[in-house]
Amino acid sequence: MTPFTLHTRSSECAARRGEVRTRHGIFQTPVFMPVGTQATVKAVTPENLLEMGAGIILGNTYHLFIRPGHELIRRFGGLHGFMNWPGSILTDSGGFQIFSLKDLATITEEGAAFRSHLDGAKLFLSPEGAVQVQESLGSDIMMCLDTCIPYPADRRQAQASTDLTTRWAGRCRQAHSNREQLLFGIVQGGMYADMRQSAAAALVDIGFDGYAIGGLSVGESKTLMHEMTEATVPALPADYPVYLMGVGTPADLVEGVWRGIDMFDCVMPTRNARNGTLFTSHGKVVIKNARYRDDPAPLDATCTCYTCRNYSRAYLRHLFVSREILSYHLNTIHNLHYYINLMDQIRTAIEADCYARFRNDFYSRLTDQ
Amino acid sequence: MTPFTLHTRSSECAARRGEVRTRHGIFQTPVFMPVGTQATVKAVTPENLLEMGAGIILGNTYHLFIRPGHELIRRFGGLHGFMNWPGSILTDSGGFQIFSLKDLATITEEGAAFRSHLDGAKLFLSPEGAVQVQESLGSDIMMCLDTCIPYPADRRQAQASTDLTTRWAGRCRQAHSNREQLLFGIVQGGMYADMRQSAAAALVDIGFDGYAIGGLSVGESKTLMHEMTEATVPALPADYPVYLMGVGTPADLVEGVWRGIDMFDCVMPTRNARNGTLFTSHGKVVIKNARYRDDPAPLDATCTCYTCRNYSRAYLRHLFVSREILSYHLNTIHNLHYYINLMDQIRTAIEADCYARFRNDFYSRLTDQ
Repeated sequence: MTPFTLHTRSSECAARRGEVRTRHGIFQTPVFMPVGTQATVKAVTPENLLEMGAGIILGNTYHLFIRPGHELIRRFGGLHGFMNWPGSILTDSGGFQIFSLKDLATITEEGAAFRSHLDGAKLFLSPEGAVQVQESLGSDIMMCLDTCIPYPADRRQAQASTDLTTRWAGRCRQAHSNREQLLFGIVQGGMYADMRQSAAAALVDIGFDGYAIGGLSVGESKTLMHEMTEATVPALPADYPVYLMGVGTPADLVEGVWRGIDMFDCVMPTRNARNGTLFTSHGKVVIKNARYRDDPAPLDATCTCYTCRNYSRAYLRHLFVSREILSYHLNTIHNLHYYINLMDQIRTAIEADCYARFRNDFYSRLTDQ
Repeated sequence: MTPFTLHTRSSECAARRGEVRTRHGIFQTPVFMPVGTQATVKAVTPENLLEMGAGIILGNTYHLFIRPGHELIRRFGGLHGFMNWPGSILTDSGGFQIFSLKDLATITEEGAAFRSHLDGAKLFLSPEGAVQVQESLGSDIMMCLDTCIPYPADRRQAQASTDLTTRWAGRCRQAHSNREQLLFGIVQGGMYADMRQSAAAALVDIGFDGYAIGGLSVGESKTLMHEMTEATVPALPADYPVYLMGVGTPADLVEGVWRGIDMFDCVMPTRNARNGTLFTSHGKVVIKNARYRDDPAPLDATCTCYTCRNYSRAYLRHLFVSREILSYHLNTIHNLHYYINLMDQIRTAIEADCYARFRNDFYSRLTDQ
């Protein structure tokens, strides 16, 4: 049974408005999921996330597997109990992080052997192990272990890797014992539309609770990313949620929704916050710039977040150049609020069936500055 | 007119329960003031401070003078407007920080010439300048510029420095134009009881809104610190607030109150929080220790702070060893709550006139562990 309920379809594009039910509640789609790598969304509390309207956050299996370990987290009531988060949680499979380790990882049919980036310890994660770890973490949505394809990759390399991901997906499905936790399959296929479509069909044959598009935003052009999304979405069942992994900029979200994506995650709002790059309805603000030294205005006059309600750009600049911890906190609240509020506006626009106009307005506001 | 109202005196010791009125409200004494060096109490928001019951915080004139500058802060409604803090603020004079610069500072009759620790810029602060800067910062309680005496110091050196502080105090009083901002004098005198008593008398002759004991907790023994406090407090007028600067540990607060101190400040709770050393009713917890790895208990079972209500020692250890920003936030909330709650208990004990028993219980709980 699908966890997805469709509310509205755009008449102008593939955008759709719906909701996903997990054992920790319902979240509205399209949705952006803040990334909480190490059992915390960096620099904010669960209450901050609830206040800004986050319904689901993401945890990173690789990081939690290494530290503090999934067995410890299981004893604390899973990630929800350990980090005190009442909403839904999606965990990735660890595949992307292991892939990022490059020389520290070896992929075989059996699984991924790798060394901890913390202490060099030899570790191994099989598809079955990735499910078991995520069952211990108690996430609401688990991801199949996948292999990521570097960009660029030739067709043979991409095909071999994609086929392995599909075989691993079958093993993950077999290993999946707690059906209260949803399991999503991941479509790879590099930058080959037909390969992604075949991979999607193979995953649908296995049958999952949702489908993710992986291996995009890895260095390819935006055009190519959109092409791959457009090729893949129609190959997936319309009554299941579709998740575009690791994407992206505000414009990427607007474009992804246009092409039928329901779920997104990205470190961009949280990482940029800590680097002092802040999102506003008129574009980015680099808060350390001297032009903000005396600026009494809030970051974004139209923003209703805690930071914009209470602090000036001048104060935020002072905190950032002084390297104060409060800077990371206030910046993160603002950037995550921006992303979550953007998705809220997107949902409203789809409901009103004016998503094309919304998209145009979004771009014209950006170029105001 | 004194800003101090006495509520109760202990029948057992010099402890007293009262309140101080400033233009930003009333705070209850004895009080602990969290330190907000650079226009932020590190790692927490104003709302966090209000929730834990902080009525007054401290700002550092030296740091704010250097960055972002008092003129900028004045344009933003003073420190209160700039950092969004509705309660009272005490600013130090900058003397202690300039003193700490050692080779970067030269003290003359006129004032203190020093170089910025940030960029080496040549700066100068006179007693009049220190008042002017603090008037720009808009603090509720300003401190006279003083010279700090190293420890140990011979009598001649201590006398010369103390006399200079007293002459500067007179100049500060003259320069004090906005009488809505209170101005406190600072008693120096090194480790010489009679010198402190003479200095106190000289300050009382000038007449201030409150009196501070400076130059303690600079390396001397606890016994000597207590002796100097005991020698100074009776030399100050009983109807004015008495502030022991830069002190100290929880036991130092208990002992200071015993000797008649009304106000304290110290970076210890905030700095220790960031170092992972946490205060509990049973003593210190060094949260990185492996013994807390699997510990489901809160930091302090008797503590009602946000951190203890929601998180386990195991989670706090995980955040700390993972160097997550949330670690500094949660630890700071706990440590400041511990200090503020300790002062609350102290005030209740004085009201009930059982401060001697409270002090005994405080020490016996500490040795439980």
